[in-house]
Amino acid sequence: MSTSIPNGSSVLEDEASDVLHEPLLMQYQQPLRLRRSQSNTTSQLAIVGSNLCPIESLDYEIIENDFFKQDWRSRGKIQICQYIFMKWIFCLLIGLTVSLLGFFNNLAVENIAGMKFVVTSNMMLARKFMVAFLVFASSNLCLTLFASVITAFIAPEAAGSGIPEVKAYLNGVDAPAIFSFRTLIVKIVGSICAVSASLNIGKAGPMVHTGACIAAIVGQGGSKKFRLTWKWLRFFKNDRDRRDLVTCGSAAGIAAAFRSPVGGVLFALEEMASWWRSALLWRSFFTTAVVAIVLRALIDICLRGECGLFGKGGLIMYDVTSANISYHFMDVPPVLLLAIIGGILGSIYNFLLNKVLKLYNVINGKGIAFKIILACSISVFTSCLLFGLPWLASCRACPSNLSEPCPTIGRSGNYKKFHCPPGYYNDLASLFFNTNDDAIKNLFSKDTDSEFHHSSMLIFFATCFFLSIVSYGIVVPAGLFVPVIVTGAAYGRFVGMLVGSNSNLNHGLFAVLGSASLLGGSMRMTVSLCVIILELTNNLLLLPLIMLVLLISKTVADAFNGNIYDLIMTSKGFPYLETHAEPYMRQLTVRDVVTGPLQIFHGYEKVGNIVHVLKTTGHNGFPVVDEPPVCMSPVLFGLILRANLLTLLKSKAFLRNPAPVGSDAFVRFSADDFAKKGLGHVDKVEDIELSEEEMEMYIDLHPFTNTSPYTVVETMSLAKALILFREVGLRHLLVIPKISGRVPVVGILTRHDFMPQHILSLHPMLMRSRWKRLRFRFPQLDKFI
Amino acid sequence: MSTSIPNGSSVLEDEASDVLHEPLLMQYQQPLRLRRSQSNTTSQLAIVGSNLCPIESLDYEIIENDFFKQDWRSRGKIQICQYIFMKWIFCLLIGLTVSLLGFFNNLAVENIAGMKFVVTSNMMLARKFMVAFLVFASSNLCLTLFASVITAFIAPEAAGSGIPEVKAYLNGVDAPAIFSFRTLIVKIVGSICAVSASLNIGKAGPMVHTGACIAAIVGQGGSKKFRLTWKWLRFFKNDRDRRDLVTCGSAAGIAAAFRSPVGGVLFALEEMASWWRSALLWRSFFTTAVVAIVLRALIDICLRGECGLFGKGGLIMYDVTSANISYHFMDVPPVLLLAIIGGILGSIYNFLLNKVLKLYNVINGKGIAFKIILACSISVFTSCLLFGLPWLASCRACPSNLSEPCPTIGRSGNYKKFHCPPGYYNDLASLFFNTNDDAIKNLFSKDTDSEFHHSSMLIFFATCFFLSIVSYGIVVPAGLFVPVIVTGAAYGRFVGMLVGSNSNLNHGLFAVLGSASLLGGSMRMTVSLCVIILELTNNLLLLPLIMLVLLISKTVADAFNGNIYDLIMTSKGFPYLETHAEPYMRQLTVRDVVTGPLQIFHGYEKVGNIVHVLKTTGHNGFPVVDEPPVCMSPVLFGLILRANLLTLLKSKAFLRNPAPVGSDAFVRFSADDFAKKGLGHVDKVEDIELSEEEMEMYIDLHPFTNTSPYTVVETMSLAKALILFREVGLRHLLVIPKISGRVPVVGILTRHDFMPQHILSLHPMLMRSRWKRLRFRFPQLDKFI
Repeated sequence: MSTSIPNGSSVLEDEASDVLHEPLLMQYQQPLRLRRSQSNTTSQLAIVGSNLCPIESLDYEIIENDFFKQDWRSRGKIQICQYIFMKWIFCLLIGLTVSLLGFFNNLAVENIAGMKFVVTSNMMLARKFMVAFLVFASSNLCLTLFASVITAFIAPEAAGSGIPEVKAYLNGVDAPAIFSFRTLIVKIVGSICAVSASLNIGKAGPMVHTGACIAAIVGQGGSKKFRLTWKWLRFFKNDRDRRDLVTCGSAAGIAAAFRSPVGGVLFALEEMASWWRSALLWRSFFTTAVVAIVLRALIDICLRGECGLFGKGGLIMYDVTSANISYHFMDVPPVLLLAIIGGILGSIYNFLLNKVLKLYNVINGKGIAFKIILACSISVFTSCLLFGLPWLASCRACPSNLSEPCPTIGRSGNYKKFHCPPGYYNDLASLFFNTNDDAIKNLFSKDTDSEFHHSSMLIFFATCFFLSIVSYGIVVPAGLFVPVIVTGAAYGRFVGMLVGSNSNLNHGLFAVLGSASLLGGSMRMTVSLCVIILELTNNLLLLPLIMLVLLISKTVADAFNGNIYDLIMTSKGFPYLETHAEPYMRQLTVRDVVTGPLQIFHGYEKVGNIVHVLKTTGHNGFPVVDEPPVCMSPVLFGLILRANLLTLLKSKAFLRNPAPVGSDAFVRFSADDFAKKGLGHVDKVEDIELSEEEMEMYIDLHPFTNTSPYTVVETMSLAKALILFREVGLRHLLVIPKISGRVPVVGILTRHDFMPQHILSLHPMLMRSRWKRLRFRFPQLDKFI
Repeated sequence: MSTSIPNGSSVLEDEASDVLHEPLLMQYQQPLRLRRSQSNTTSQLAIVGSNLCPIESLDYEIIENDFFKQDWRSRGKIQICQYIFMKWIFCLLIGLTVSLLGFFNNLAVENIAGMKFVVTSNMMLARKFMVAFLVFASSNLCLTLFASVITAFIAPEAAGSGIPEVKAYLNGVDAPAIFSFRTLIVKIVGSICAVSASLNIGKAGPMVHTGACIAAIVGQGGSKKFRLTWKWLRFFKNDRDRRDLVTCGSAAGIAAAFRSPVGGVLFALEEMASWWRSALLWRSFFTTAVVAIVLRALIDICLRGECGLFGKGGLIMYDVTSANISYHFMDVPPVLLLAIIGGILGSIYNFLLNKVLKLYNVINGKGIAFKIILACSISVFTSCLLFGLPWLASCRACPSNLSEPCPTIGRSGNYKKFHCPPGYYNDLASLFFNTNDDAIKNLFSKDTDSEFHHSSMLIFFATCFFLSIVSYGIVVPAGLFVPVIVTGAAYGRFVGMLVGSNSNLNHGLFAVLGSASLLGGSMRMTVSLCVIILELTNNLLLLPLIMLVLLISKTVADAFNGNIYDLIMTSKGFPYLETHAEPYMRQLTVRDVVTGPLQIFHGYEKVGNIVHVLKTTGHNGFPVVDEPPVCMSPVLFGLILRANLLTLLKSKAFLRNPAPVGSDAFVRFSADDFAKKGLGHVDKVEDIELSEEEMEMYIDLHPFTNTSPYTVVETMSLAKALILFREVGLRHLLVIPKISGRVPVVGILTRHDFMPQHILSLHPMLMRSRWKRLRFRFPQLDKFI
């Protein structure tokens, strides 16, 4: 038997919102009949709550206890209208804020990195190469140092992409402080600095995290600390609404990062969300529509030249529209080959990234100084490569009849001068000595089939592949999308150069397909990546080829290992609940996995007992059982949450004798007492002081107990219980005995009881059974690295 | 208490597939331990089945009975690989077939309708107007007559769009014969004829139904009648896999109809599917990718001129790419207005269509002759309007400097000559005297801002609006997409003409936005419509405006009534299970809705009893209860399905005494005996002949009983039980008493117990409570029409 959520788990129930969450207004007027208690107290709007703690939170379950029922009935039509109104206002707010931030982010990166390149290029022009390198490397180092210092000291949660954390949150796992205001600020500033520092990292992942942060903060309902509360905001003090907002926020993040509103919605749907409703589709669509419209307006302003030197929007949109894309059957074999190798490369990428992350975890674990030294050394190393490698390439003469100046000096362009004489350009510098966005633009551009050497492309590909793997794990906000796109583009363009004139496709299109194959091989999304690439490149005619490439590269890569975000989540130890059951779960019954002594409370429980149990266990939910003489035989009355017990203890709503508290309960408490607390607020049993006398008193738990928790019979297979647990989005699942008459409840299942690690530790013989997914495995490689 | 599925319901459980459905290969080797029976019989691959009957089918529940467990353990790695291989092969097959059919469909319509217009135009040229009209009207009549006759006589299920039926099927409601081979053939042929007959109906809806039909037939696992069975196909003899295939099929249908692969996937996701998994996203994406690639190849062939006179592909793709789409803030107000009015028009459209359908149901109910007469009169009426209305328009002089010939004679083009003198064209004829596809192309085309009169556009809009409403309900396969698009385009273009030069947008773009607004107002989808329109028009730069229009028109229309497909489903009486609970469901407990006497079987049950119960009730699931002396106190052993009982009765696996049947059960039966039957195969208890002696014998139900059905306690609110029922996809939900000791089960909840009609009939006082959705209602309008 088990009641097992480790301490630090948070309790959460999605209340009342259930009736409210539909896009259509619903109304109801009066309680049809009241049960048990007839008192019509003044209790306010419902949402029976809980406190939020370090790890884990969620469910879509409706809590049904007398207190809440009472409270729910008192809601009026106006409150529902307020709720719906606020829901859309919040989406609007999220869309506005995220698009402004995304725009600001791009503008800052463009201008900081642009200034850096202009200064360096001017020195190169004056042939002061050493000084140029020193300026380049030291400005990169300063930016990286700043980004890593603020990340390491102020908000370590802001390091990395943030997508795994947000994905885990939407699955019900609250990593601590991922949505705090600190994290948000560090994420934005750090991301700008790190990207400007020419590190091979992206800004899409941080944008997703930023969007989710904004959504979570918006949905937190103001701040008591800063006295920013508003009664309309109380409706959102529950997990379900917060999760919905965070989903919209992450969609807005992708929409702002790539100017890809539909892709953003699909990304949130396919990759981020664990539970999805069509109402959410509509709201996230609205959010990303706001992003698209605002960005469009801002770009209009920039196109009028009001955004500084490098303010041509800078928002990624690699236009590859060319009027005459035509491809025939003979173009398919090279594309297939590209997709297969891209899939293999993607899985190698995931494998290596995972290994490097493990290594970095060891280094970063040694202290903040080590973290910062690691980040700085990667920066110096990157600067050396970016500045050093172009020297390997020989200068090439500028082609005639170009529409753009050649060589381009200072500002971004396809033909960088670097150290070459006038009239010549350095093809490697055009890729390396540029922001990633400009490099991608170069690689995707058409009519440049003869711009690059084979060797340059190969060097660029290898360097990007390597750099993006070693850059991700350092202590700065860092995304994976752009590095993968740029690496894939180099790979695709190289394939295109090999295929040469045997294909109708130009090298720019090969680069797009190469990006698709590496994205598919690494991130393993389908529809969302497809739409993102289409929206990035603005060319619908490529659609069939992109679909083909994504399908093949994902299939190939899936044969080797998992999605990059899942690997990161696993390495971070998040108890992510998968949709499907592992095969061996069908062999086990729920009885086989519930462990440990079960803590049960009685309907009228002694205060001392409650305090003792809360202090000695970390459980979050406790079955409440009525025993004789209260009733004829032991009856499972329901489930009470730790948070509610703490609220009761704090309020000292005690009784001298074990007797019903009656309607008193509804007067004494308001729904706010039980509402979900803001991010990071945790009640602790140790903070509650009780006298000896109080410890001998009783609490009537009945009005605060969820009287109809979901239950399963002990003989049900674990796989079947998992379906219920996962689909309904539960946090606690009570296990009842097959044969009544014994205790009415034999255990509680929680998320942790479904984790393979837990099950395998209980049943080690399952380890030997070959139940694992069919995948090619290379154990010797693991040993080697 | 209630066990209530009406007779004719089918039983269905999604078996074993649960372990198999993930995209990744899983494997397991041996049973970890065997329970109860240790016999290692030769029982084959699992999938405990049931028979499929007229109405209702589904769930995602895992059936756990000893027989199945035994069977499941005997599955090998190779069988799982076979299953996964077949899954993808089926998707490939569906994609191939649907794209070929879609292409053939388009080609046939182009050529039949094209020939008709060429012949008529030639007569017009010769100024034989009366003869031209007679030829036009009679060819339309013949085509309509043929389509309606085959529909009415051979497959009445093929009438209409088919989308509501497929949607209901994916929700778990099997309308009879919707996926039969007959239906498929009639749908294809009928749709070609009806569209060629210039009726104002579409071919997208029928394509979706066709795709779903093909998927269902492919997934049926061959045909015993035609001896087309293959042992690999047995894996798909269950509801879950069939539903998955049908989802892929409907995605392929939209993909083929609009050349919109991503839109197809999203349509299936947003509108069709009631349960969705990410694995399904991937498979449907694969299916539509196949469609996109095949269509692309076929169009290549046609572009070489090998597809007949009108074989320029004909596949819808209204290219509105224009290099310089730019719009500013001042363009937004007219677009907003367009969206709001579009939403209102959409809801009026739905309202009127619903009324007309009710009227038509009365007419069609009077007999086949009435159906056909109705169809024919609509055809004649349409021909009169199409031929007559252009005479209202005055001839206009051809503009100079056109890239295309003016007036166009015979073949499709923007400037139809009709009755005008040379050098003049008739703008109304360019719209009316054309296929719908060409009319849409005209309306969407740019640089034609001065082509149409205001009055012509208004006449065209009004006629289309009216005709599409009266044409849908007749007894031919008829879609709604294209009529709505053409009507919306006319509306949008009219708005564009009113706005005139006050906007940067050309009239063609206004027409696109108008289509979007009417689609949004009528079909109420968001992301999928957005992507379909983008893929149709091949212009990503319009995205922000289209998103805006769709959001607004959907919001406005939702304030008045529901989605058109939901209205049609309601009028057809499908018990569609909504995702959300009605507010009053929170006021009721499950005990309040379970009705009627509960039929319970004992673990060892008399054959006579079983036969009696099966004959006298229509229930599909029966609780099995063990009572003393088998055990100490009454224990709920599990749930047994009607189909399994029938299989047991047919096999005459009877015992002389109430004693365990032991391992005998596993030898006697193979999994095929319990597998889901093909479409339309129903076992009946009346067909089983039993002797008096046999009637006195016993059956041991234990090995065939699902020992761990999902249960809820009787005090749970109906809303909470609905969440479990809907999310897990159940068919039966057992209700257990709060206090044990009485009977161990108090009722069974089925889909029908959650239907508002059922609940309101039990609790009429709920009718008076104002629990309905907040919508503007016009009861006086209902009376008036």
